Amino acid sequence: MEWTTEKRYKKYSEWTAEELLDLQAQATKSDYQLSYHVRPQSGLLNDPNGFSYFNGEYNLFYQAFPFGAAHGLKSWFHLTSKDLVHWKNMGLAVKPDTKFDSHGAYSGSAHVIGDELFLMYTGNHRDENWERHTYQIGAKMDKNYNITKLEKPMIEKPDHVTEHFRDPQLIKFNDMYYAIIGAQDAKTKTGKISLFRSKDLKKWQDLGYVDFSNDEMGYMIECPNLVFVDEIPVLIFCPQGLDKNITNYQNIYPNMYMLGEQMRFNKAKFITNQEKPLNLDDGFDVYATQAFNAPNGKAYAISWVGLPDISYPTDAENWANCMSQVKELHVKEGVLYQQPVPAMASLRKNGTPLRVEKTLDTHQTLMQDASQNYELKLDIEANQEGELYFAANNNLSAGIKISFSTKDDAYLTVNRSQAGIAFDQEHGETRTIKLDANQRLSIDLFVDHSLAEMFINNGKNTMTFRYFAPKENTKLAIASDGELNFTGTHWIMEK
Amino acid sequence: MEWTTEKRYKKYSEWTAEELLDLQAQATKSDYQLSYHVRPQSGLLNDPNGFSYFNGEYNLFYQAFPFGAAHGLKSWFHLTSKDLVHWKNMGLAVKPDTKFDSHGAYSGSAHVIGDELFLMYTGNHRDENWERHTYQIGAKMDKNYNITKLEKPMIEKPDHVTEHFRDPQLIKFNDMYYAIIGAQDAKTKTGKISLFRSKDLKKWQDLGYVDFSNDEMGYMIECPNLVFVDEIPVLIFCPQGLDKNITNYQNIYPNMYMLGEQMRFNKAKFITNQEKPLNLDDGFDVYATQAFNAPNGKAYAISWVGLPDISYPTDAENWANCMSQVKELHVKEGVLYQQPVPAMASLRKNGTPLRVEKTLDTHQTLMQDASQNYELKLDIEANQEGELYFAANNNLSAGIKISFSTKDDAYLTVNRSQAGIAFDQEHGETRTIKLDANQRLSIDLFVDHSLAEMFINNGKNTMTFRYFAPKENTKLAIASDGELNFTGTHWIMEK
Repeated sequence: MEWTTEKRYKKYSEWTAEELLDLQAQATKSDYQLSYHVRPQSGLLNDPNGFSYFNGEYNLFYQAFPFGAAHGLKSWFHLTSKDLVHWKNMGLAVKPDTKFDSHGAYSGSAHVIGDELFLMYTGNHRDENWERHTYQIGAKMDKNYNITKLEKPMIEKPDHVTEHFRDPQLIKFNDMYYAIIGAQDAKTKTGKISLFRSKDLKKWQDLGYVDFSNDEMGYMIECPNLVFVDEIPVLIFCPQGLDKNITNYQNIYPNMYMLGEQMRFNKAKFITNQEKPLNLDDGFDVYATQAFNAPNGKAYAISWVGLPDISYPTDAENWANCMSQVKELHVKEGVLYQQPVPAMASLRKNGTPLRVEKTLDTHQTLMQDASQNYELKLDIEANQEGELYFAANNNLSAGIKISFSTKDDAYLTVNRSQAGIAFDQEHGETRTIKLDANQRLSIDLFVDHSLAEMFINNGKNTMTFRYFAPKENTKLAIASDGELNFTGTHWIMEK
Repeated sequence: MEWTTEKRYKKYSEWTAEELLDLQAQATKSDYQLSYHVRPQSGLLNDPNGFSYFNGEYNLFYQAFPFGAAHGLKSWFHLTSKDLVHWKNMGLAVKPDTKFDSHGAYSGSAHVIGDELFLMYTGNHRDENWERHTYQIGAKMDKNYNITKLEKPMIEKPDHVTEHFRDPQLIKFNDMYYAIIGAQDAKTKTGKISLFRSKDLKKWQDLGYVDFSNDEMGYMIECPNLVFVDEIPVLIFCPQGLDKNITNYQNIYPNMYMLGEQMRFNKAKFITNQEKPLNLDDGFDVYATQAFNAPNGKAYAISWVGLPDISYPTDAENWANCMSQVKELHVKEGVLYQQPVPAMASLRKNGTPLRVEKTLDTHQTLMQDASQNYELKLDIEANQEGELYFAANNNLSAGIKISFSTKDDAYLTVNRSQAGIAFDQEHGETRTIKLDANQRLSIDLFVDHSLAEMFINNGKNTMTFRYFAPKENTKLAIASDGELNFTGTHWIMEK
């Protein structure tokens, strides 16, 4: 099916219920569908939005086009959770139904104000000449989840940015509200983060761009997100078109972060000693990560596992993408750590210790059928090298291959080239991280049908990626030319 | 909203996706929505259909009208489960899309044949004069859940029954197929169960009515269901309009059963020593129970918790009804026992032993906030009497009241008159069962927001009912005039 502009922007009211029911059934039945991650009920899911704690529950929204695997007319779908693991689908929340968001209720954030959850997001409107107009819109959600939009946009686009001005994050600091907004400078066409200030959410003052780097941040910054992690300000953002000489990356668009010393809101200055932004995830498919500070003092992040302008194999099944699991953030020794939340352990069933053998022949089967939804923890000693295979066939000619060394030149490489249906080969089929030499390596791998999330060395690195393997390929194996010492546990993950 | 005939039979393709999304969100957000029982994604749910084990999973379908709390144009929705507790929504399965089921894909059963699940169900068609025509239709579901309907109806309605001829159950016995079908005799207008035989599912022979009682079985029998429980044939059915002098019942329509000695298929004779049918459930809202023999040798049943021609408070929220939990069937001392399946225990969290006090003042609070989703097991000694309250407010003026005596004149009464929103008062607000005198009483109560299921004395009786209490009414208490000895445990139930 060709996704013409007309089809992508067809009103929700012009799609039939039968079409939607068929799409929902199709998404549910897919062999690649996820079992313990947030997935679209139908069609396409992208950015997490409005991640927050409200009314005694975690609230999460996501960008949705419910009618196919295309970036069509977007809305916000809503989920709630008590534990950040078990999510309840609350359905369509923010609809593209006013003149300010007629062509998409785009990404944004949420902030608890009084007994309401205040949503701030970007409305996309196309005029009769199909020219884009962008509006920063406010809406209030009450405890019964009823949403009322403010009548007028909150922030007008200033002249110094182009229509690529979106994804507002609403923050409160010292009794003032601030909005940071992804932007493209009108003159230089470079990526910027705009900062606005307001006392009352009505009158807003443009504080200009946030000063956080001397480098040019590509041609557009999407999804800027400021979060305090262990009291340290962390700026997460997506600098589209970033020069790879500044920070190298392989994905079509990067999702990066910078650790700060201080955020001086009123001076629009993010003071940092970090020279270059760092990749938030070292895998293939993370984008648009949104983090927030929860009332329990923790900082939680969740990522869209999917990328703009990339086709995924499930497009043919009319659905696409998923959310990462929620990650708890910490800063240790100048690095952002991302870790599973404790409630993930509640999904573990049937823990199986994995056998250790000193000398491996060609390879050792850890589990012939590891299932399609599991967690695997491996602790590998220093000065070893080998390969871990999962989602593999019997002779390991197909599968995901993780090569690693914990010797002098320590590294870890994910290779998805033999996993199954090929996709996005243009941006490479391997991803490599360097490891500290001669150190133990711990891997916490979460597999969910077509998604893998690896937390390496307690979350110092994460590598998140999709793959589309034949469903009978469920072998888990390890190989090495020599001695290999490790301990491990495998758990089935069931929600 | 008034449910005109036109609206109820509007084609699925004429409802918009936006309407459906709104209905799905409305159903999800309801305060009365269930958390660990099968519930409609939107609109109305009624009879369980096609309960079976296929492709390594339990399969269940239900009658659905997805567009509101009305008996409109029906389809089959599909669910699968590994453990009979955690169900995965597979979406719309059998659509009303041929001339034989244009006005409803009505109830039926499923039977594994080769590597397909064969579905047999009733197609409802209304002609230009709005006259009802009934067809018994076959369809095959493959392992990818694709459904192909047979081109022609399998069984023509014989002249000796009226158009009230529906709900076929397909059974295989000694290499022959049999279909038992609910019917109304054309001449006497009384309820009957028709029996048909076929070697090849193509040519069917009318064996007449099943002989199972000398009494008149009301004016129509719906949902006849033959299942073998501990090798004993059990006939479950809904004799609409049954004379209460035969077997007393209080619900608008009863769901009853008879234990047999033998089912002589070829003689259309259900040999039984049981004189009168018995109520399958002693609560308020069970109907259309469907049971089947699983490959593990067990017999499992599931019930619609809802009744035809009764309005429920959630009708105002555009959704209605739910499924009971799955019940494992056994026959002991001439009585059908219904018990929770073992996997229900996997939902238990935070078991709390309940305190015993010898002498109660006015009442004893067992838990001030018992939550809205829990299991409560109580074991009460012989020669006691008292009341159990749940979904109660602080002074117990509102709530469900269970009065009981384990003395000479032992009984248990459920009173839902003070529970919350009143409904179906016409058929009484209490239900009482007699208990054996001077015996211990065990109660296993499952509460899920607006549904209660009580298994009494290990499932010798079940009492299932809906109630619609204010959500802050979560007190659990016990009262007695004198001494009361019991032990108990409370578990939060979480999926």
